[in-house]
Amino acid sequence: MPETKVKKTEDFNEWYNEIVELAGLCDKRYPIKGMNVWMPYGWKLMKHVDDLIREEMTLTKHEEVCFPLLIPESLFKKEEEHIKGFSGEVYWVTHAGSNKLEERWLLRPTSETAMYPIFALWIRSHTDLPLKTFQIVNTFRYETKQTRAFIRVREIHFFEAHTCHADLDDAERQIKEDKEIADRLMRKLSLPCVFNKRPNWDKFAGAFYTISIDVLMPSGRTLQVGSIHQYKQNFSKPYNITYETIDGKHEFCYQTTYGMSERLLGAIIGVHGDNKGLVLPPDVAPVQVVIIPVIFKGKENEINKACMLIHDRLKNRGIRVEIDQRDCTPGNKFYEWELKGVPLRIEIGPKDLEKNECLIVRRDTGEKYTTPQHSIEEKVASELKQLSERLYNNAKKLLDANIHHVTDLKDADNLKGIIEVPWCGDESCALEVEKFLDCNTLGEPIDSKVYDGKCPICGKHADKYMRYAKMY
Amino acid sequence: MPETKVKKTEDFNEWYNEIVELAGLCDKRYPIKGMNVWMPYGWKLMKHVDDLIREEMTLTKHEEVCFPLLIPESLFKKEEEHIKGFSGEVYWVTHAGSNKLEERWLLRPTSETAMYPIFALWIRSHTDLPLKTFQIVNTFRYETKQTRAFIRVREIHFFEAHTCHADLDDAERQIKEDKEIADRLMRKLSLPCVFNKRPNWDKFAGAFYTISIDVLMPSGRTLQVGSIHQYKQNFSKPYNITYETIDGKHEFCYQTTYGMSERLLGAIIGVHGDNKGLVLPPDVAPVQVVIIPVIFKGKENEINKACMLIHDRLKNRGIRVEIDQRDCTPGNKFYEWELKGVPLRIEIGPKDLEKNECLIVRRDTGEKYTTPQHSIEEKVASELKQLSERLYNNAKKLLDANIHHVTDLKDADNLKGIIEVPWCGDESCALEVEKFLDCNTLGEPIDSKVYDGKCPICGKHADKYMRYAKMY
Repeated sequence: MPETKVKKTEDFNEWYNEIVELAGLCDKRYPIKGMNVWMPYGWKLMKHVDDLIREEMTLTKHEEVCFPLLIPESLFKKEEEHIKGFSGEVYWVTHAGSNKLEERWLLRPTSETAMYPIFALWIRSHTDLPLKTFQIVNTFRYETKQTRAFIRVREIHFFEAHTCHADLDDAERQIKEDKEIADRLMRKLSLPCVFNKRPNWDKFAGAFYTISIDVLMPSGRTLQVGSIHQYKQNFSKPYNITYETIDGKHEFCYQTTYGMSERLLGAIIGVHGDNKGLVLPPDVAPVQVVIIPVIFKGKENEINKACMLIHDRLKNRGIRVEIDQRDCTPGNKFYEWELKGVPLRIEIGPKDLEKNECLIVRRDTGEKYTTPQHSIEEKVASELKQLSERLYNNAKKLLDANIHHVTDLKDADNLKGIIEVPWCGDESCALEVEKFLDCNTLGEPIDSKVYDGKCPICGKHADKYMRYAKMY
Repeated sequence: MPETKVKKTEDFNEWYNEIVELAGLCDKRYPIKGMNVWMPYGWKLMKHVDDLIREEMTLTKHEEVCFPLLIPESLFKKEEEHIKGFSGEVYWVTHAGSNKLEERWLLRPTSETAMYPIFALWIRSHTDLPLKTFQIVNTFRYETKQTRAFIRVREIHFFEAHTCHADLDDAERQIKEDKEIADRLMRKLSLPCVFNKRPNWDKFAGAFYTISIDVLMPSGRTLQVGSIHQYKQNFSKPYNITYETIDGKHEFCYQTTYGMSERLLGAIIGVHGDNKGLVLPPDVAPVQVVIIPVIFKGKENEINKACMLIHDRLKNRGIRVEIDQRDCTPGNKFYEWELKGVPLRIEIGPKDLEKNECLIVRRDTGEKYTTPQHSIEEKVASELKQLSERLYNNAKKLLDANIHHVTDLKDADNLKGIIEVPWCGDESCALEVEKFLDCNTLGEPIDSKVYDGKCPICGKHADKYMRYAKMY
């Protein structure tokens, strides 16, 4: 059986690179760097994450659309900051067949510049607002840094919500709703996260402000899995998205966006996995329960029949269950399903058969116990719930233990994770701290309380603090 | 209220162009020709079609994958016929940021050349076969002809199944399965179709043979909504997809593909629509039932409450139901939901309330009758089923009435639809018939019986016949 050459606890980054292929999530041998093949198991996992996002979007009355991939250069260039931020990382289509195009088209790196000219046509009056839309598509960025599956790729599976509002208040309400959506979603993935208001000098190109959704990986680096942007009227003005007010005036809309990507998979793999392989949160696990018949000669039929019965009962309850009747040893099967991170394993052997029991094995703890078959549905449901909670609690402990608040930079020596440092508000001071810590500026906590400290660089009063971390 | 300027019965093509936008399926104002915006209602409809395809794929044990969009030129060029067929219609990415790429990449027009180098890595032994995969992605073709929403576009929503087999027999079994899948799927869309073996001079570039799945549109033209291809070893040889047999030999795989596209929507719109707008098959209608409270003053609360109750009861049965409580006249609402093709409308007014009844209106026939509220679930289910059947039967009648078998070309004067003509087997004779009929060669029926006729061009014996039609 294949297994990772390194342990997660020994070399996280190398383990990560190995496990994504071993577990059958993606194939990195496609001949364009950073463009990987989604294998069936990985694609199913991603689709379950997409489904959770769609559920949240339906709940909050966003409507799904799908805009073209290609964007004419002239549309792209309407918002000055946006083009500055992205023009270095877009792919250009210049020819069709053997013809040179009159105007170059780019592959969307994100869809503002494809959507907003059309929003300008859709929105006429205040009764058309708020406009709440989203799409789930692949986007393209020319990454020049080292690529890493799901974390830094050139074709990115991406969710993006785009909204238009009559005023800033309503746009701010949207940002609040986005945070609530993110909270619910991340809880289902058992991923505790921190929201950070990105520093002004490193926000999304064209945004008024950007909130990043960051997860702490076991390597001590943070992974930005999503972002929420307040655009105010920064895009509605160049793209002329106006509406008629009740009084017959014409105003520019206020806009927000909210995006998340396949990096969520990167976080799931990195945060929950262990030396045996993946550990998948039940809400998104392609297989939640695997049933393995432990066959002894002469009992094949009865054992297989009992397994099928349990299989059908769980399936009827909407549980994603598989039965593994392949012709190989139970040990090999255990090994493979552990690698793939299936939350629960059920075994039925001759003794279990006699007692009308089965053995349940938890992927996260390795805990095993027998349980009566008659109440298997309830048992499985409760174990899946507990497993999800335990994954979350463990990750939360790791996160909490790795957020360090220091007032003196010397205390930050050898600290891993997120480091909070008092900040006077000057960009230059934050950049000094970055340098000293060999970190990047993550941003200000969005829920920071009144703060009274001293900037460790300039000594001035600091009424807030900034977070720093090594980032993926 | 907006309405189509022309009637379907007067000018089908113009009606089609209007209805796709009026019904909120797509927006054609995106500034690249043939790349349209999927609006929420159209995207939901497409997703329901995708879901039916996924169901069929799961049933037949195909696994979903997702391959990169971009294909390096060198990979694309490995199969000679394929490149001949497609090189005139692909989009080329030549630059990333401000850098010129070392090798040009193309946007997939179809995914053979992206997938097969990876299949060569996945398949080692006969135990890896058959390999049955599919993906649902957007593909890109540089159409130079006039574009038409869903029917001839440059960014195409596309389903493609790709399979690899140990021998020709197994590949042929796959083709048979594909036809069964198509039959089941098309039945759910109430779309009768004909399978035609495309003439050798007009098959898919690189295929051994191609079967097209054709629908007859009310204009008398056929629309090819899908195709099934036998590749034999035409691709496995250049892409080196081999497997080890039981005896330890190495053989090339046999391959098939099966594709369908958003043209299915074009067929649904065209075949089922009427002068009032769309008529959607219940299996894919985003809204299957709309409930409209017919409010009279003083009874608002009771009527709304009764509507909500019916709404919740239908929803619990898994029916896609909406209640329209907007502040406009019932007449306007009727008009709009008819335009959007919702199969059933339920109205509740004060009189219905008194009698515990409600009014059911069928979108296809316009038939109205009252029915007791207590058995509404059963009534709705049976009406949806009947509507689906009636749509199919009507379309089948239209198709059957428009397949004409002629032995003398003079009899084909003024005939519309599909014209069958005896064929000796010579390409030149078929091309003569094409010219005479001002049609294209559709292909031979795949289920043709023993035939004994005379080629109307050369007069030789014809043991088969060919179908001709005007095609979209």
